[in-house]
Amino acid sequence: MVKLNENYKNVRQSYLFANIAKKVNAYTAAHPDAAIIRMGIGDVTRPLTPPVIAALEKASREMGVRETFRGYAPDEQGYPFLKESIKKYYQTVSGVELEHSEIFVSDGAKSDIANFTELFAENNTVLIPDPVYPVYMDTNLMAGRVIKLIDGNEKNGFLPMPSANTDADIIYMCSPNNPTGAAYTKEQLKVWVDFAREKGSVILFDAAYEAFISDPSLPHSIYEVEGAKECAVEFCSLSKTAGFTGTRCGYTIVPEALILHGESLNKMWLRRQTTKFNGTAYVIQRAAEAVFSPEGQAACKEVISYYAGNAAIIAETLTKLGIWYTGGINSPYIWLKCGMDSWEFFDKLLQEINIVGTPGSGFGRCGEGYFRLTAFNTRENTAEAMSRLSRLYR
Amino acid sequence: MVKLNENYKNVRQSYLFANIAKKVNAYTAAHPDAAIIRMGIGDVTRPLTPPVIAALEKASREMGVRETFRGYAPDEQGYPFLKESIKKYYQTVSGVELEHSEIFVSDGAKSDIANFTELFAENNTVLIPDPVYPVYMDTNLMAGRVIKLIDGNEKNGFLPMPSANTDADIIYMCSPNNPTGAAYTKEQLKVWVDFAREKGSVILFDAAYEAFISDPSLPHSIYEVEGAKECAVEFCSLSKTAGFTGTRCGYTIVPEALILHGESLNKMWLRRQTTKFNGTAYVIQRAAEAVFSPEGQAACKEVISYYAGNAAIIAETLTKLGIWYTGGINSPYIWLKCGMDSWEFFDKLLQEINIVGTPGSGFGRCGEGYFRLTAFNTRENTAEAMSRLSRLYR
Repeated sequence: MVKLNENYKNVRQSYLFANIAKKVNAYTAAHPDAAIIRMGIGDVTRPLTPPVIAALEKASREMGVRETFRGYAPDEQGYPFLKESIKKYYQTVSGVELEHSEIFVSDGAKSDIANFTELFAENNTVLIPDPVYPVYMDTNLMAGRVIKLIDGNEKNGFLPMPSANTDADIIYMCSPNNPTGAAYTKEQLKVWVDFAREKGSVILFDAAYEAFISDPSLPHSIYEVEGAKECAVEFCSLSKTAGFTGTRCGYTIVPEALILHGESLNKMWLRRQTTKFNGTAYVIQRAAEAVFSPEGQAACKEVISYYAGNAAIIAETLTKLGIWYTGGINSPYIWLKCGMDSWEFFDKLLQEINIVGTPGSGFGRCGEGYFRLTAFNTRENTAEAMSRLSRLYR
Repeated sequence: MVKLNENYKNVRQSYLFANIAKKVNAYTAAHPDAAIIRMGIGDVTRPLTPPVIAALEKASREMGVRETFRGYAPDEQGYPFLKESIKKYYQTVSGVELEHSEIFVSDGAKSDIANFTELFAENNTVLIPDPVYPVYMDTNLMAGRVIKLIDGNEKNGFLPMPSANTDADIIYMCSPNNPTGAAYTKEQLKVWVDFAREKGSVILFDAAYEAFISDPSLPHSIYEVEGAKECAVEFCSLSKTAGFTGTRCGYTIVPEALILHGESLNKMWLRRQTTKFNGTAYVIQRAAEAVFSPEGQAACKEVISYYAGNAAIIAETLTKLGIWYTGGINSPYIWLKCGMDSWEFFDKLLQEINIVGTPGSGFGRCGEGYFRLTAFNTRENTAEAMSRLSRLYR
């Protein structure tokens, strides 16, 4: 008889967003006229930009003509035109040089972050920051790995650092962080890279929010740090950068220099992807290419600066109200200290000022007492939400 | 120090298509004027049909307008419009009733077939037909599972059946088969379903080529067999059906009735997908919906009948030449007995009549002495290739 993967039993069903929806639905049923402003879910609202739409339409038409139709891609890891765009983006933004063979295009960072753990044995100790994006935890629980948490808190600005007795074979990092919006400096990343190289650990670096970095001193890529190519894999996505949450395209960098026990992680990931994945749709890769064109980058920057404007309004309001927070500058997320239980604060905001956010406790035990707001709503709604919050606190 | 997944060392690099390319390149370099006809790789050549292109363009435009823009899908497993289309397709083609919750839309059958094995423990015995699509074997080698092969041969028409002492927890089936083109009857599938239910095994049924079935007595879905919903998962794809090899959309059926050890495989797969996948692009799902529209189905049938016409020309030629084969009727593949070593036959066809096919030994040890031709070339090239083959044998 077939035996099941018993580790799945250790993964608790996450009711975070389901609970939020339930509470919001109950409230709106009782108060049908309430003008609710949603600043909870981390999804974008601005449409794809004109250069991206033009590329998507052009590629769609190509697929209808025999001479320009595309079947299986010659390279399942991405068309050379897109790999070249990503390579140039790294040169420009981070000063990092990549080979095409180090770039793996996929349907999104979530898939890659989750699937990458397959390359490792079960008996590894996994270090995960708390609070953080729940996928790191759940995918390792599914594989039955030992997980250690490293605490983010007000004292370390939600940017935990390793100590001499930190124990970790696989290290997850997310910077700028989801949900806290906190971003590591180059010096801090260097400490982590040195730690990983000394211990023989691998860093899985989630850079999904790098495009929101506005401080020119902050690194966009972990490869800006010397030695990182020997110990780190970097995951990136067009979801938040270019509004691709519903269009699905990401990319993962696995350096050729990343050799462990004499094995190339690049070749192992190539083997994994050629065996279990068949590439990203041609039309989507053309849309992604357009994101990296000069017009595409200009359009992206405009959208990001729109969201950044929202974040600034939120940050300014919190500063005025004397509420402690991180994020909001180099991130679309604002992580604030609510001074009470996260869910209690959720109820208070919903009921008293009709604002929906995300309780920090949904991202880990260190998130208790904190609350996430996102900058992805409209300017008008964001401003209105903040004037409501100001009234609440006065 | 991080420990790697040592099972990856057991997966041999497949040089099949690389070797083919190498040999073809060497030949064309030496004979630049040779009019080579490629009937090797299983990729489609006809473009996406007009209803699909129209849907893709319309959806692309929607993504550029704030009011119709789509971010994360409300259901990561597929939009209701596409699930409804697939549900109706099953009703029409197979008389099978499905719930929306039993349908999981993805970026292709390959990903799902590969990822589904995560739901099972390592200590399962996996039964794989030989010859077959290499992904079944490689994904289980990567997980360190014990694999048993069940022989396909001329005697059983490359449709192996279980015997009383067949040992299997997880059973792979592919019908119509890749590479042999052989398709199981409903009665044969019933034997497998009864076997699986008696043993408590799971059948992973790959139906990627079901749209090529022309014989009305043959089942398009394993769920046409009584009891299959209690033991089988079905994988399907628009790659060959609708030319989506470069557009990437498939769907997997996990029945609610599939309960093992008191656990719902449907809920386990839902958990896997919500944790490790973020859904298929909205524009691609709209294109897929168009495949299932009346116009889309008519256009698909026309393309499939074009390929079927090619297959018929190949089959007819082989019959005339007295060469044993399977497939060609309910499949785009023709699997012929070459009467010599598969690679020797490859070289002979390449050098003497400039035709490229696939050596059967590339699909497993039972494929030795056989050869796969595909019907995906043009009508003209297929006819020309067959007249060359006839000359060779005369």
